[in-house]
Amino acid sequence: MHLEIVSIGNEVLEGETLNRNAAFLSRRLIEQGYSISRHTVLPDDPESLSKGLQEALSRSMLTIATGGLGPTLDDVTKSCAARLFRMPLQIDSTLYDELRARFGDRPELESLATIPKEAMILRNGLGTAPGFLFLSEEGSLLLLPGPPREMELMFQQEALPLFKKHFPQLVPWKTLHLSLCLLREGDIDPLLREIQRESPDANIGIYPALGTLKLRFQVTHSFARLEEWAMRIRQAFETYVVEGPSLEEAVHRKLLLQQKKLALAESCTGGALAARLASLAGASEYLLGSLVVYANQWKEQFLGVHQHTLHAQGAVSSEVVREMAMGLLRQTTADYAIAISGIAGPTGGTTDKPVGTIFIAVGEREKAIDVGQIQAPPDRGGAIELAVQTALAALWRRLAYQTLTLSHESILSTDR
Amino acid sequence: MHLEIVSIGNEVLEGETLNRNAAFLSRRLIEQGYSISRHTVLPDDPESLSKGLQEALSRSMLTIATGGLGPTLDDVTKSCAARLFRMPLQIDSTLYDELRARFGDRPELESLATIPKEAMILRNGLGTAPGFLFLSEEGSLLLLPGPPREMELMFQQEALPLFKKHFPQLVPWKTLHLSLCLLREGDIDPLLREIQRESPDANIGIYPALGTLKLRFQVTHSFARLEEWAMRIRQAFETYVVEGPSLEEAVHRKLLLQQKKLALAESCTGGALAARLASLAGASEYLLGSLVVYANQWKEQFLGVHQHTLHAQGAVSSEVVREMAMGLLRQTTADYAIAISGIAGPTGGTTDKPVGTIFIAVGEREKAIDVGQIQAPPDRGGAIELAVQTALAALWRRLAYQTLTLSHESILSTDR
Repeated sequence: MHLEIVSIGNEVLEGETLNRNAAFLSRRLIEQGYSISRHTVLPDDPESLSKGLQEALSRSMLTIATGGLGPTLDDVTKSCAARLFRMPLQIDSTLYDELRARFGDRPELESLATIPKEAMILRNGLGTAPGFLFLSEEGSLLLLPGPPREMELMFQQEALPLFKKHFPQLVPWKTLHLSLCLLREGDIDPLLREIQRESPDANIGIYPALGTLKLRFQVTHSFARLEEWAMRIRQAFETYVVEGPSLEEAVHRKLLLQQKKLALAESCTGGALAARLASLAGASEYLLGSLVVYANQWKEQFLGVHQHTLHAQGAVSSEVVREMAMGLLRQTTADYAIAISGIAGPTGGTTDKPVGTIFIAVGEREKAIDVGQIQAPPDRGGAIELAVQTALAALWRRLAYQTLTLSHESILSTDR
Repeated sequence: MHLEIVSIGNEVLEGETLNRNAAFLSRRLIEQGYSISRHTVLPDDPESLSKGLQEALSRSMLTIATGGLGPTLDDVTKSCAARLFRMPLQIDSTLYDELRARFGDRPELESLATIPKEAMILRNGLGTAPGFLFLSEEGSLLLLPGPPREMELMFQQEALPLFKKHFPQLVPWKTLHLSLCLLREGDIDPLLREIQRESPDANIGIYPALGTLKLRFQVTHSFARLEEWAMRIRQAFETYVVEGPSLEEAVHRKLLLQQKKLALAESCTGGALAARLASLAGASEYLLGSLVVYANQWKEQFLGVHQHTLHAQGAVSSEVVREMAMGLLRQTTADYAIAISGIAGPTGGTTDKPVGTIFIAVGEREKAIDVGQIQAPPDRGGAIELAVQTALAALWRRLAYQTLTLSHESILSTDR
């Protein structure tokens, strides 16, 4: 079944807020076997909103809309939807009492408890604004609140059970996700075209990002094909396969499983590598910490990098990242150590070392240090992102395949 | 003039990639005085794509579409647009030679140089896929590539000059942005309603995020009103006004201006605070670094936190963040120091200190340390984000208004 997702609010339309709600809903709905045919972002004004919602309802069996349910100035979704479904608004005294019991006597609660007659109410476990489901033969509409945490909780706890009842899936898709690190779209494209030719009914997606490629294969029957495709990709790109939805998840799981400890030393990435791992619950089991040593003085003081190495080679050099990694292994109980130093830009580049020059070292206790250079895109965000991803990829390949990356690969200079 | 933005590609529709392109284009176009009436995300398949593009063209004078211009399997935008505008595809030998000169003899270049006759070509300064502008009385269409860096460069260098020529703005909007920290939407809403009542023609937006509220005011004439509104908001919320598009930018500019140095010590935020500042060009001028001390052993070894404090008070306590901040000021040349320790969750909470309990200290050399506790939302990402934002807000208010935050405010427990 095809669904549409509508995000309501000027903050998204005007680019002030990224549309994370639509992305979240798409992923969760696809997992449940639904297909998403369109996302739309509409403004807060009642006329455009009514027109856009009506178009979506006429195209799709079910439209899911988020945002504009609160009591403020620009929240108009509820009254628009009530008009579209020809339902009067009236105060629901049970809901009003509930809200007052939870939030006290706030003035906005009366407006929040005023609801379209006959719409089903979805409880908000975190905030004040309820959600609504309007069922109709001509197209049903689910309204969820805009704040992401409220929306996500309401979707999981209240909306999904209603979906399974009112919009059951008959032919579920089976999905295979595969991630590859350090490769480019062109490296894998010939193999994907071959698979698509053999199985024109399969739904194949390729999602390139800095340092990784995500692949998604979907079929409706003969699930064995998914396994066969995974095998073919593994045979062709064995040590590039990432076991997890992201590089950080793969590294995280592997370190937990192997009960190894990791220490980081970051210069140009400024803590972004540590933050990536720390975003995952349980990271404190293996991550000792990260010494973010922006100042050269800190590189000496906290990591024991030699002053003469800094002077002779420069802070952005293979020797300095090697000494940073060695300092971590010497001073801490880490089993693995990663060090990064580079020129994220936009200034600081030289002829020898242009903006985007980044050195990375991955050390393992009692083993050789894997050191190498990458040339990142000349924008600061891209350089930091590629450095983080490459460092994670090099650690992943060392953990999973005992493969050195930085001192071996010529693949790392990228134009993406 | 109203424009629509269309993002093409299953990776966005399926939630694998956030729609950063639409957000970027909206912000840039609004700066130029255009209005955005809708965003749409469409799949790669030619039928849905043609239908969605045709709908957008019929509603709007100009539609800007990104994605699906590359040479791979699922890139179909160019041929769809050529059919809609009834233009045959043909190889452009000048473009083909250009691409071969820049990228060598790659097999995909022939398909990339095959273009809709009569469409205007936009050069891609970074990648291989060109963009196109289709001009028509019934609705014009601009096609830009999907990779964000390529799209952004092409938009700035190639598309904007064409816009100014073909779609000039007659009545430019004047815009005022204001950011407030630590306040909730409800705190400012009465004042905004008052302003909106007085000036019904003004376009007022309020964009809440964890720890900040962004306000946007737009008018078409009597610009003096914008100044007056800014004054009224300043009078009501003086020390909460953030001078910059974000807290990190405000802190960044202030530290550069005051030529002060900052050192950080992070536990539960795992480097996210340092990474936020390091994302800004020039951060190395004032940011010495961050000691991300996840392990208690690291708190002792690198910051001199006392073992007995850790044992007696626990790592998540006002005493430990105070000692972390004091350790930074003692061991480094920093003028300001921030320390954070908390329970980001989902596990590790106790009755006394539930998940979301976070302590923050902001120290200034020779001055009192500002220490306090916040209660963050019980999700890991939200807790880290609120801790980072609150720490930045407390430093900002100390730098800009000599105001202590953490030891004074009762405002910090938030339900957003």
